[in-house]
Amino acid sequence: MSSAAPIDLRSDTVTRPDAEMRAAMAAAEVGDDVLDGDPTMRALEDRAAELLGVEATLWVPSGSMGNLVALFLHLRRGDRFFAPQRAHVLDSEVGTASWLAGGMPQPLPWTAGPGRITAEDIRASAVGGGAYFALRNRLLCLENTHNAAGGTTTSPQEHAELVAAARETGLLVHLDGARVWNAAVALKTAPADLTRGVDTVQACLSKGLGAPVGSVVGGSADFVHEARRVRKMLGGGVRQGGVLAAAGLVALERVDRLAEDHDNAQFLASGLRELGWDAAAPETNIVMAEVPDPAGAVGRLRRAGVLALSLGGRLRLITHRDVSRDDIRQALDRIAALSD
Amino acid sequence: MSSAAPIDLRSDTVTRPDAEMRAAMAAAEVGDDVLDGDPTMRALEDRAAELLGVEATLWVPSGSMGNLVALFLHLRRGDRFFAPQRAHVLDSEVGTASWLAGGMPQPLPWTAGPGRITAEDIRASAVGGGAYFALRNRLLCLENTHNAAGGTTTSPQEHAELVAAARETGLLVHLDGARVWNAAVALKTAPADLTRGVDTVQACLSKGLGAPVGSVVGGSADFVHEARRVRKMLGGGVRQGGVLAAAGLVALERVDRLAEDHDNAQFLASGLRELGWDAAAPETNIVMAEVPDPAGAVGRLRRAGVLALSLGGRLRLITHRDVSRDDIRQALDRIAALSD
Amino acid sequence: MSSAAPIDLRSDTVTRPDAEMRAAMAAAEVGDDVLDGDPTMRALEDRAAELLGVEATLWVPSGSMGNLVALFLHLRRGDRFFAPQRAHVLDSEVGTASWLAGGMPQPLPWTAGPGRITAEDIRASAVGGGAYFALRNRLLCLENTHNAAGGTTTSPQEHAELVAAARETGLLVHLDGARVWNAAVALKTAPADLTRGVDTVQACLSKGLGAPVGSVVGGSADFVHEARRVRKMLGGGVRQGGVLAAAGLVALERVDRLAEDHDNAQFLASGLRELGWDAAAPETNIVMAEVPDPAGAVGRLRRAGVLALSLGGRLRLITHRDVSRDDIRQALDRIAALSD
Amino acid sequence: MSSAAPIDLRSDTVTRPDAEMRAAMAAAEVGDDVLDGDPTMRALEDRAAELLGVEATLWVPSGSMGNLVALFLHLRRGDRFFAPQRAHVLDSEVGTASWLAGGMPQPLPWTAGPGRITAEDIRASAVGGGAYFALRNRLLCLENTHNAAGGTTTSPQEHAELVAAARETGLLVHLDGARVWNAAVALKTAPADLTRGVDTVQACLSKGLGAPVGSVVGGSADFVHEARRVRKMLGGGVRQGGVLAAAGLVALERVDRLAEDHDNAQFLASGLRELGWDAAAPETNIVMAEVPDPAGAVGRLRRAGVLALSLGGRLRLITHRDVSRDDIRQALDRIAALSD
Repeated sequence: MSSAAPIDLRSDTVTRPDAEMRAAMAAAEVGDDVLDGDPTMRALEDRAAELLGVEATLWVPSGSMGNLVALFLHLRRGDRFFAPQRAHVLDSEVGTASWLAGGMPQPLPWTAGPGRITAEDIRASAVGGGAYFALRNRLLCLENTHNAAGGTTTSPQEHAELVAAARETGLLVHLDGARVWNAAVALKTAPADLTRGVDTVQACLSKGLGAPVGSVVGGSADFVHEARRVRKMLGGGVRQGGVLAAAGLVALERVDRLAEDHDNAQFLASGLRELGWDAAAPETNIVMAEVPDPAGAVGRLRRAGVLALSLGGRLRLITHRDVSRDDIRQALDRIAALSD
Repeated sequence: MSSAAPIDLRSDTVTRPDAEMRAAMAAAEVGDDVLDGDPTMRALEDRAAELLGVEATLWVPSGSMGNLVALFLHLRRGDRFFAPQRAHVLDSEVGTASWLAGGMPQPLPWTAGPGRITAEDIRASAVGGGAYFALRNRLLCLENTHNAAGGTTTSPQEHAELVAAARETGLLVHLDGARVWNAAVALKTAPADLTRGVDTVQACLSKGLGAPVGSVVGGSADFVHEARRVRKMLGGGVRQGGVLAAAGLVALERVDRLAEDHDNAQFLASGLRELGWDAAAPETNIVMAEVPDPAGAVGRLRRAGVLALSLGGRLRLITHRDVSRDDIRQALDRIAALSD
Repeated sequence: MSSAAPIDLRSDTVTRPDAEMRAAMAAAEVGDDVLDGDPTMRALEDRAAELLGVEATLWVPSGSMGNLVALFLHLRRGDRFFAPQRAHVLDSEVGTASWLAGGMPQPLPWTAGPGRITAEDIRASAVGGGAYFALRNRLLCLENTHNAAGGTTTSPQEHAELVAAARETGLLVHLDGARVWNAAVALKTAPADLTRGVDTVQACLSKGLGAPVGSVVGGSADFVHEARRVRKMLGGGVRQGGVLAAAGLVALERVDRLAEDHDNAQFLASGLRELGWDAAAPETNIVMAEVPDPAGAVGRLRRAGVLALSLGGRLRLITHRDVSRDDIRQALDRIAALSD
Repeated sequence: MSSAAPIDLRSDTVTRPDAEMRAAMAAAEVGDDVLDGDPTMRALEDRAAELLGVEATLWVPSGSMGNLVALFLHLRRGDRFFAPQRAHVLDSEVGTASWLAGGMPQPLPWTAGPGRITAEDIRASAVGGGAYFALRNRLLCLENTHNAAGGTTTSPQEHAELVAAARETGLLVHLDGARVWNAAVALKTAPADLTRGVDTVQACLSKGLGAPVGSVVGGSADFVHEARRVRKMLGGGVRQGGVLAAAGLVALERVDRLAEDHDNAQFLASGLRELGWDAAAPETNIVMAEVPDPAGAVGRLRRAGVLALSLGGRLRLITHRDVSRDDIRQALDRIAALSD
């Protein structure tokens, strides 16, 4: 049992705003964003659009709302959408892609490795239909990095092939890019290279980038106009949101530092393997370990002073801005002590 | 090109009421079934309940509505349900299990053969949850026979194991038994042996049994009471439905003759194999053939005077009450002529 | 307490198919209406389109499904629709216009008399909006005759004014014409005069016209194409529906006889007034009586051998094909005996 | 045309956080509120529960989401709810009470004055039902103050009578108390006196109280437990929300100062009447003026340097923390100059 503060590796959502962010929030110029726009919101949305390579973006309180707004606008009741199996929109958004956005999902297998689908599978799946009573194949939903697969990336080349297959078969494309920043840093490319050709993209400010609240969802200006209406429907229209957008603007300047989290994740996985764990080398900041009883392991780690989550039958540990290399070392020590 | 009447193997839904059924319809005692019950409806629903081994059933205009009513009552928005991949509720009901009944589906692989899932996969899938924001695992939806797998059956023993696994993991169980009559005949067992332990079951009167319109959905008396309300919501409450129920009562006396359709399907598959086709021996009345271009094959067969459907990348041919052994022979002749 | 058979004035839905209808059903040519169309269905739908003055119609199992299909296609989530207060789509379809079709209703007052709304109220109500977060005014739903108001009619002239007001304010128009046949007979005009300018109309075959099951919903050919898909979604696609359509075709030849029901309703209301009841002279076949305790009155009448319903705080009695002038006389006698 | 800064009377939502609030936000202790709770959030939710007299509350990003979460949990598809006509849940939440929460609304007339309904009307409306296919009367949704009626209040006595009538007829009660703080101040009572007997209440922090973002929705601890799940579904679960909760805590200490807004509203209405306008004396901070062309008037006022809104055919002007008595005087001068 550890008496020291626990080392929190449950998620990069636990990052807390630092002094710079708090100062920006305190000084933010604000307006009523439902009525006529908050100037700091506008600045954030414009900057995010620029980085993501889309015409416009809209701030939303969460990544889940960003995905939901996009799917709500893309899908009609009676449509089918495709997503990699275990995608966040399938497993971790309380089913809204189905019952609220209206789509019948078809998960695609990880044919090309963990979290990686293939253009061939898209082409083979998006067939059928034609009959008036058939599901209409409407949307491909990508996820980069793929959370449940362990933060795996899709390269610009793979991305282009998947988008091309979707276009051939008449599908729209949404990218759940909650951690697209991590993907870009890991792949040494620009985020905009990973959104090329999509209709819409969602990207989080509150995970590795460390803003306290918020994501953006973007696409064409027309999409954002309608998305603003859907955000209001869902109760996500806020008033003086500039206080949050100010933190988001700071966050967007911190993309490059994610490399440090990735290094720490490599270090963590390597240390776990030395302790005899089955932990693959991570591509980004998510370490997945195969353990016999993930829920039990979460409890033992917690008692040892290391917080982790069980996800899909594996143990998940995430590195982030609020854990240093020393914290990781200490976490490994605590885990090692467990085995003694 | 055939000048004779086409032989229709698209579906057993094409069967037409015969003289006996029409006479029963013409003579049916009727009432207002929305207000206080139609006596012939009552008789049909009671007889179906008896055969299916459930407390009560409700007539519905289609098998799709029967499944929908059951899922609507079992599922809440935010629930997950499990079904064999390619199940009818996933692929062929215009997505209503998702957007209207409210469930997020998770398809289960055919680990035990075409259309056959395993108790192990149920146990492994229906984990997780607990967190307030997690999908709640609610329902297992079985399908016996499994249409898209080629009319494959689940035996009473396998069925019992699947139901037990569902119970252990806290799932309700619905059986899409559109063709449960075929399963029972093929397995030489009673339909009630194939519904044991389920919460609800749907069974069709208008497929192999030959009634013009209708299915039943059954379970506890309480379920049927609520199902009547949902049927009315969906617009499926009818008035003097006894005219259809009378045909259904005749249909229920014809379960045994499905053996003839199964024999014909064996004969058809065997004939196709002699012609060099890749057509597995069917368990019931559905023959699936692997062909390079199913849609093209449907067109060529139609021009030769044989009607079939393309389903999931294969050619589907179904035998039924309105095609005799001679019709099958002639169909094979027409197909043979195609290859010349 | 009456020992004789009760006289059923609860609804014109209780009418039973007679020998001519049953013979037509028994002889009907049929096909698989989901797959490639049932010839008798086609004939019914064409004949109904002709009578209703629309391009095409689609058979549905109930009037509720007909209204639902139309509203589902007209409305999007975030739209508002207008209907006379106490309209069937508001009060008697289990809320589907809201939760399933997706519209937020705004009831319009009966400014011009029972069941009668005005063009001025439409113009005054369908304002506002413009803001991205406002409800979008989308649809006017008329009802002719208006059931809960006591079968009141809207004349061709009034209808034209309401439709014009809807068009001016950018609204689509759906007519719930479950009893549009009664309206046409009472107004001595053609049904098509009462559908002029609407986008869609629903009309019942199973009320005064006496078919056992079914309604039609019609509009443009494009609408009917999409409606067929929505009907399938709801589980309303049936197979050999020709057996029901045959009855519908007979029913459509019986519109003129509704005059007899209207005479009987006048006779009934007049008799009730002689007995001291507050029963307005009906325009069609629905008699509404103001009584202190409608639910209690229903019970007392039932014990006396007269079946009625309580609707919106009044007693409702409906005349129809299966009650003759003599039956009405006897009903009045039984009611008179009650007061002794 | 005014060259000075416009005086913004469109809504009390335009209030901006002041230095004290910003300092509180910058200093807020935070945590991950989705995972294990943010301590400042907890403090805010506890304090709000205390003031509102409920067991627990939950922070939500907007009042619309607060109402939606409550209605989503109270209503099932097929339920009916009652609300004063022109209520915010009917007119100003993009229809979500209907299509998403699932209720069919029935507006109640303002029998007892602007925005005021009566216990008699509740009793008379919530009848019927019983039939398995009838709407089920489920909920009464009150609104205090009533926005579209001009910020009118419901007294503790009236409130108790309405709640009693709801209970007698088996209805749940939700209070849309977006401006319940204003009602309490105007009625010189505690907010908890205006929530007595309700199942749930929503109250805004971002209107007159001046927090930048957020509302609370409260009721029993069980309700809040389920509400947290629904908030996550809608995408309203945020991470380090403590930065916003800190502002909310400051806002909750400022209820008493609403009296100043009310005085200013009286002063404004009185000034408008002196200019010949038809502006009733307000009960709280909302002034409604009858003008021939509200949309046109909004434009003229804007050009004169006074911002107002058109709502339901009237001009709406709202006083709030960011407009002083001097601002009101200047607004009246600008309006007077218009008439010259």
